[in-house]
Amino acid sequence: MRILVVGAAGDIGQVVCDELGQRHDLIRAGRSSGDVQVDLADAASVAAMYAKIGPPDAVISTTGDVHFAPVSQQTAQTFLDSLQQKVIGQVNLVLAGLDVVADGGSFTLTSGILDRVPIPMGSAAAMANGALGGFVRGAAGEMPRGLRINVVSPGLLEVSVPRYGAWFPGHVPVASDRVAQAFAFSVEGTATGQVITVD
Amino acid sequence: MRILVVGAAGDIGQVVCDELGQRHDLIRAGRSSGDVQVDLADAASVAAMYAKIGPPDAVISTTGDVHFAPVSQQTAQTFLDSLQQKVIGQVNLVLAGLDVVADGGSFTLTSGILDRVPIPMGSAAAMANGALGGFVRGAAGEMPRGLRINVVSPGLLEVSVPRYGAWFPGHVPVASDRVAQAFAFSVEGTATGQVITVD
Ligand SMILES: NC(=O)c1ccc[n+]([C@@H]2O[C@H](COP(=O)([O-])OP(=O)(O)OC[C@H]3O[C@@H](n4cnc5c(N)ncnc54)[C@H](OP(=O)(O)O)[C@@H]3O)[C@@H](O)[C@H]2O)c1
Ligand SMILES: NC(=O)c1ccc[n+]([C@@H]2O[C@H](COP(=O)([O-])OP(=O)(O)OC[C@H]3O[C@@H](n4cnc5c(N)ncnc54)[C@H](OP(=O)(O)O)[C@@H]3O)[C@@H](O)[C@H]2O)c1
Repeated sequence: MRILVVGAAGDIGQVVCDELGQRHDLIRAGRSSGDVQVDLADAASVAAMYAKIGPPDAVISTTGDVHFAPVSQQTAQTFLDSLQQKVIGQVNLVLAGLDVVADGGSFTLTSGILDRVPIPMGSAAAMANGALGGFVRGAAGEMPRGLRINVVSPGLLEVSVPRYGAWFPGHVPVASDRVAQAFAFSVEGTATGQVITVD
Repeated sequence: MRILVVGAAGDIGQVVCDELGQRHDLIRAGRSSGDVQVDLADAASVAAMYAKIGPPDAVISTTGDVHFAPVSQQTAQTFLDSLQQKVIGQVNLVLAGLDVVADGGSFTLTSGILDRVPIPMGSAAAMANGALGGFVRGAAGEMPRGLRINVVSPGLLEVSVPRYGAWFPGHVPVASDRVAQAFAFSVEGTATGQVITVD
């Protein structure tokens, strides 16, 4: 398969590319790195990327910034910014891809554990993760041409413990290869409309 | 208890008021009706409402419009508008209430079934419902002064079948009194951080 991976240079993106790159043709994308540059927050940039690369068989996103702060220090705007970056960004990738991805292809997005196992300062992340889960469950049945859509929701990755571990009290990190397998399950399997958890 | 019900004149609001009004002091709110007017989409309007009514013991919201359309006819903007109206509106009510609601009080929001049992044209509703579930799970542990927060996620109400039934193929409507009890469970019980489903 030709697989587009947006966020390929990130912690999860690298894990996914290491696994799927063994048997597929990868196109790596990021804001500032990779084979092609794209800003998911900008629908025009997403359309330009698809025009440039041509039809992929599968699209993966491992992107999404959210605002971490205690709920009392969040505002309507910080919640909205988090939804824009993490949810609407990935949704732009899906909407612009509906007419482009090959028949029977798939979209695999990334959310995370924080809507089922909370951490301090994580309410905007939890909101965004829940929104992505709702979106793929709600949208899967309406995808055209046999396209599938899932979201992978991993716990804190072992490789990310040095960056984020102190923020995740009591969370047991998940092995990178289990996260990679969740993406393989979505891309190479038949599932659709699923939140694929890795705990 | 003094209970603020925003959306009191709506289908769910009426059911909730009928039940909780039997044993509590209700303040009914809506954009255009009730004891006090408020637009949840406008943070200043929400602050003005709290200033006018004084501290409630419990806050309920039964509000939220979303954009219904096939996923291929949705855009980043229609998803964002749905999040603004249904999610950020109810979040405004919580954020402005954090310093106002009486110690040990509660917030009870409303989402809906569409993120677990989809319908055609329901992807934005599913996204918003998922976001609300993530938000209360993520925020509950950080609420000040013993405040609690839950969201009630009902199926299609029997009373709403004349309005919406045709859009919900195969859904079995839920009895109004079971929905009312879900709100009583949140307001009068001890639960927090829960998505209270009524299926
Ligand atoms: N790491 C974990 O343990 C973990 C666990 C659960 C969930 N998650 C979630 O998984 C996602 C990725 O996490 P990560 O730790 O792998 O992140 P990361 O290491 O910061 O990498 C993110 C990657 O996404 C790209 N990117 C970000 N925003 C973009 C945009 N608007 N358009 C295009 N590319 C964009 C970045 O490219 P540039 O560098 O070029 O900007 C970068 O390559 C996040 O949503 C995070 O919440 C992470
Ligand atoms: N009805 C169902 O079967 C059902 C099932 C599951 C979930 N839900 C969800 O429950 C919520 C309420 O549904 P419903 O059928 O009861 O709605 P509804 O009958 O249309 O009533 C909504 C009420 O909320 C008020 N409202 C709306 N937006 C507002 C805002 N920005 N600020 C202040 N008040 C606002 C309206 O006041 P005005 O009329 O004055 O504008 C109205 O009183 C929605 O989120 C819906 O998706 C409904």
